[in-house]
Amino acid sequence: MRANKKVVFKDYVTGVVEESDMEVVTTDTVQLKVPEGSTAVLLRNLYLSCDPHMRAQMTKNDRRGAMHNFLPGSVISGFGVGKVLDSGHPDFKTGEYVWGVTGWEEYSLIRAPETLFKIKHTDVPLSYYTGILGMPGLTAFVGFHEICSPKKGEYVFVSAASGAVGQLVGQFAKLMGCYVVGSAGSDEKVNILKNKFGFDEAFNYKKEPDLNAALERFFPEGIDIYYENVGGSMLDAVLLNMREHSRIAVCGMVSQYNLERSEGVHNLIFLVTKRIEMKGFNVIDHFHRHSQFVETIIPHIKDRKIAYMEDKAQGLDSAPAALVGLFAGRNVGKQLVVVADE
Amino acid sequence: MRANKKVVFKDYVTGVVEESDMEVVTTDTVQLKVPEGSTAVLLRNLYLSCDPHMRAQMTKNDRRGAMHNFLPGSVISGFGVGKVLDSGHPDFKTGEYVWGVTGWEEYSLIRAPETLFKIKHTDVPLSYYTGILGMPGLTAFVGFHEICSPKKGEYVFVSAASGAVGQLVGQFAKLMGCYVVGSAGSDEKVNILKNKFGFDEAFNYKKEPDLNAALERFFPEGIDIYYENVGGSMLDAVLLNMREHSRIAVCGMVSQYNLERSEGVHNLIFLVTKRIEMKGFNVIDHFHRHSQFVETIIPHIKDRKIAYMEDKAQGLDSAPAALVGLFAGRNVGKQLVVVADE
Repeated sequence: MRANKKVVFKDYVTGVVEESDMEVVTTDTVQLKVPEGSTAVLLRNLYLSCDPHMRAQMTKNDRRGAMHNFLPGSVISGFGVGKVLDSGHPDFKTGEYVWGVTGWEEYSLIRAPETLFKIKHTDVPLSYYTGILGMPGLTAFVGFHEICSPKKGEYVFVSAASGAVGQLVGQFAKLMGCYVVGSAGSDEKVNILKNKFGFDEAFNYKKEPDLNAALERFFPEGIDIYYENVGGSMLDAVLLNMREHSRIAVCGMVSQYNLERSEGVHNLIFLVTKRIEMKGFNVIDHFHRHSQFVETIIPHIKDRKIAYMEDKAQGLDSAPAALVGLFAGRNVGKQLVVVADE
Repeated sequence: MRANKKVVFKDYVTGVVEESDMEVVTTDTVQLKVPEGSTAVLLRNLYLSCDPHMRAQMTKNDRRGAMHNFLPGSVISGFGVGKVLDSGHPDFKTGEYVWGVTGWEEYSLIRAPETLFKIKHTDVPLSYYTGILGMPGLTAFVGFHEICSPKKGEYVFVSAASGAVGQLVGQFAKLMGCYVVGSAGSDEKVNILKNKFGFDEAFNYKKEPDLNAALERFFPEGIDIYYENVGGSMLDAVLLNMREHSRIAVCGMVSQYNLERSEGVHNLIFLVTKRIEMKGFNVIDHFHRHSQFVETIIPHIKDRKIAYMEDKAQGLDSAPAALVGLFAGRNVGKQLVVVADE
């Protein structure tokens, strides 16, 4: 039996999420064995992923098609990397590493381990499976290559470009021979986009009083592909600057999640006049392609053709602040929480 | 030489278009011959089409991707049906009927007749080539069959459903075996949708204080396909009621054209959570398919499998009121102007 520190979701959130909406407690103990006869898997959680969609899970919403909610009083769930401590499932062995949906706690009993992905390549940092080699990486890959239908030489704009997904979308686009501009919320991030991730241009949206003017400056010929991570007024400015037959992959709208009412988007008529395709997607529809994706990306990581940047918070006690910081843009690179050493 | 009555566009319009934004004049005379040596075609205009996109052409807008403007002081242009009075072009002969972009006047000299479509089937009312057999018909057909990727049994919602395009979309959807609901702006139109065009259900949006509640009532299982003609608050309500992997064909947003600033749309995040595809299109990209389309539709008209309703204004003097009435929803069925008898 071990004590099991965990991050508990206190109650539904309206407006801006705060650290006090979560609580770190060590009330339960956990047995380091799966229940006799079950097919569950017991994980030692190593890395937990802070992802924008988790804010949506904190808003009470029972509408069809909304994300399923966190349960008040329950441990927060999200993507993470763990080590199998015990297994009642024939596909998982003690000592193996996995990633998938787990709890924000030290030890998690996963009752449906079929949802977990086994980690075959352990010669890269395992934390990468919360980002470039996990859900965000596949999100960037599928969203760009499938939803955007990119062609060499096209003009690509990525918002929230230094985040887990954005930094990869920009690099995938550069590998395809596109012209890529990213927006981010600090000069430090803009510098990283240009000098570490190889974006052609980048700008700090907080310093641009007129987003439309900024986009006109960086895209005098207009935008072929917009990889949408933020929504709101940025989307409105983008719509003014899209080209005919251009595409918008709607991955998320992080600028909106902490608003009680989303901003209105006014320029949708340009969908018609410019024949724009705007498509939302969810990576869970594409998880069957994950192992093929990893085989494609790992050589690029080893050959240093793709750079990747993480922002690691140490320990479960720092997890609420790490998640809250994501929405204030405090992270530089992929935000994750280190629960334990490998 | 003949007098040539015409409808002149006076100046750019802000806000609601009024009859006084146009002027009917008979100042010019026209020679009923094409200029010596030219490849122009001289048309006697018979029917002129009142289409929502014409309002957008009245707003001054030089942004890339916007519609080209009418020129202040010039005759209004739009789709129409005419008879060839004289031709310098080898493809067109005197006495033939054509449809395409022409002037709002009695006689038009078409300097680029390659843009005109020859009318082969004259055993249907020629006015149909302003609607079911012309631009709006092809818009409905392509928008529904190509952009919406419909399947038998799907739930289809059409706004502005009694208009030129909407009435046909609903009937195409019924022919495919879909469940179809339409919205319109009067009880008379609702009655027509249900009893003449065969919609499963229809509602008067002006009598619905809560559009979301109305859609929930008619689509307890949600909407698979939304054929978007109006924009604004209807689109917001629709987004709440779309199903996963549903599609929105954005044909137009007529509720927005007379506003100085478009309404904001707040529910775009559902594009992500429900993986909605929202695609704008313009029928001019599909004009090469027109003759095949006509061959498909004419048998349905003759077999009375498709109903069609026109609202005919008599004479060029009534043209400004007919166009203005389109935006107030005064027309019942396809609005056109009869310039001359066949």
